[in-house]
Amino acid sequence: MADLAQRFAGNPILRPIDVKPSRPDMAIECLLNPGVFRYRGRVGLLLRVAERPVQQEEWISMPIADPASPGGVRILSFRKDDPLLDLSDPRVIQYDGNGYLTTLSHLRLAWSDDGVHFTPDDSPTLVGEGELQTYGIEDSRVTQIGDEYHLTYTAVSPAGVAVALTTTRDWKAFEQRGLIFPPHNKDCALFDEKIDGHYYALHRPSGVGGLGGNFIWLAKSPDLIHWGDHRCLALTRPGQWDTARVGAGASPIRTEKGWLVLYHGADEFHRYCLGLLLLDLNDPAKVLARGKEEVMEPTAPYEKTGFFGNVVFTNGHVLDGDKLTIYYGASDEVICGATFSVKQLLATLSLA
Amino acid sequence: MADLAQRFAGNPILRPIDVKPSRPDMAIECLLNPGVFRYRGRVGLLLRVAERPVQQEEWISMPIADPASPGGVRILSFRKDDPLLDLSDPRVIQYDGNGYLTTLSHLRLAWSDDGVHFTPDDSPTLVGEGELQTYGIEDSRVTQIGDEYHLTYTAVSPAGVAVALTTTRDWKAFEQRGLIFPPHNKDCALFDEKIDGHYYALHRPSGVGGLGGNFIWLAKSPDLIHWGDHRCLALTRPGQWDTARVGAGASPIRTEKGWLVLYHGADEFHRYCLGLLLLDLNDPAKVLARGKEEVMEPTAPYEKTGFFGNVVFTNGHVLDGDKLTIYYGASDEVICGATFSVKQLLATLSLA
Repeated sequence: MADLAQRFAGNPILRPIDVKPSRPDMAIECLLNPGVFRYRGRVGLLLRVAERPVQQEEWISMPIADPASPGGVRILSFRKDDPLLDLSDPRVIQYDGNGYLTTLSHLRLAWSDDGVHFTPDDSPTLVGEGELQTYGIEDSRVTQIGDEYHLTYTAVSPAGVAVALTTTRDWKAFEQRGLIFPPHNKDCALFDEKIDGHYYALHRPSGVGGLGGNFIWLAKSPDLIHWGDHRCLALTRPGQWDTARVGAGASPIRTEKGWLVLYHGADEFHRYCLGLLLLDLNDPAKVLARGKEEVMEPTAPYEKTGFFGNVVFTNGHVLDGDKLTIYYGASDEVICGATFSVKQLLATLSLA
Repeated sequence: MADLAQRFAGNPILRPIDVKPSRPDMAIECLLNPGVFRYRGRVGLLLRVAERPVQQEEWISMPIADPASPGGVRILSFRKDDPLLDLSDPRVIQYDGNGYLTTLSHLRLAWSDDGVHFTPDDSPTLVGEGELQTYGIEDSRVTQIGDEYHLTYTAVSPAGVAVALTTTRDWKAFEQRGLIFPPHNKDCALFDEKIDGHYYALHRPSGVGGLGGNFIWLAKSPDLIHWGDHRCLALTRPGQWDTARVGAGASPIRTEKGWLVLYHGADEFHRYCLGLLLLDLNDPAKVLARGKEEVMEPTAPYEKTGFFGNVVFTNGHVLDGDKLTIYYGASDEVICGATFSVKQLLATLSLA
């Protein structure tokens, strides 16, 4: 009951070794959490590629996006025995009160004719640009509205972690639309149609100082660029699998019963699973149901161990009738695929 | 040099004892940080009034806004010797991992003919409404655009600390416009005119986990309700008086040199002072200058001791030629007034 996913037999479908580094002195550490879309009969993944400078003994080196430096990357190095260095978290380096990421992420396309075998592009598609993305860009979600694709992704810099929007029609020319949600925010999933004349988005701001938490919120917009009327839809649940943080997956799925939202939740041990929310079709601020149990949990070896183990995290899917194919990051290191039956997912929800 | 404020001789101008509690079993603990405006020849303050249930021995009681309870207030009580209770911060009670405020704030009008002597209304003007304001509403900023007043204020609830917008034309009928900035956010000051066809606001989102901080940001809007294109304008400055947090005061002041922003900054000891930013008149995302030193610091006895000592905090002012009259909260307990010369403030800034 706690796992309804049919995993691809060939998982993982993409590993760090399958992708070319963006420069010879960088190594790919992880592939993570792709945005997913269909374009001209193919399935596209917009991978998050996390790179790290090739490391030298006694030193730890981190990359920063910097258009003024060669290749757009500046490398900072600290001695490993420097007492100001704190390496207790594999994702963030603390040095003298400042946080740096161990890796720098860019977004890169991979294409498939069958939805199973993917060929990654040889170079980055989108890289951190400007002072609000100096620590890179991460975890895109791709939403097609008409013939335009809307990419929401995490922009990371010393100013904070926020949500940026970029649009494209042809996957060659991209238009940056600025930050649509200020720090601290992630996990922004746009609805792929207007409801009663308005655009909607799920997003995940964070609380500070004992008030608020890592909850799923809804916002409303006339134009996808300016957002307001923020509402809180889903809190974390004490003592359950989603006790520490929750965040939306990809665009909500229109069903007869309501908007079905696949979301990730983590517990206090940072174990990431997937669960369900159901929102009213005409008023997505109304939560009709929330699944008590997870519908997918880390069970396969590649989900249990890796760069950051015990993680299944999805922010991209394609729908084909009742078959929902998700692409997901496993253990913050490799890309996998799995399918669900939408009917079966809905059946797990008790509707009031 | 570090203090250019001419304080009112009669400071403090309003104390908790000058205001009537909203119910007989509530006591006013503090008056804080008023929004300020002119209406029909008078100066209005929109005070933040923080109340607390009259306390009983061995118990600690806190209030929660709850429309379903008598008078709209529900009172929670815990035994003082309960080991799950943490009272180390005078503003927030931690109980079993949840944060509660020690006081519940509402907003209340006070009126003056001379800008010095104020008469507070006998009852609250605006109280927390709905599930996003159950812990009250705080620190309003009032911006007049045409004949409409726009009130931005902090909405506090277990879902987080966010910025709400309410409008009025007559200070009797109010229209709620929802949350305009999601958690964690405070210190939202609207510009009082459009720039190149857009509305602008300063706001103060917060970072989490070593990335980002308590910085001043700018946002853009077509309608004052939906916001986007967020930019970071001012970080905290290590080792200076504004090392821990910064946040905008009231609406930026148009001068010949640029938009003059009076902001508060605090150091690691929570000492709150006021300082200056100057923004480009035609592109407020461009910071022309930032004052190195504070222009006001807690020096008077009522600024140095109180509910939370060593605080001067302003979010409201009126302008009369060169004379800027600010109203401010001192030590999170009483309301005071002071004047500045705009010319003198500008003279402290070295323009590039």
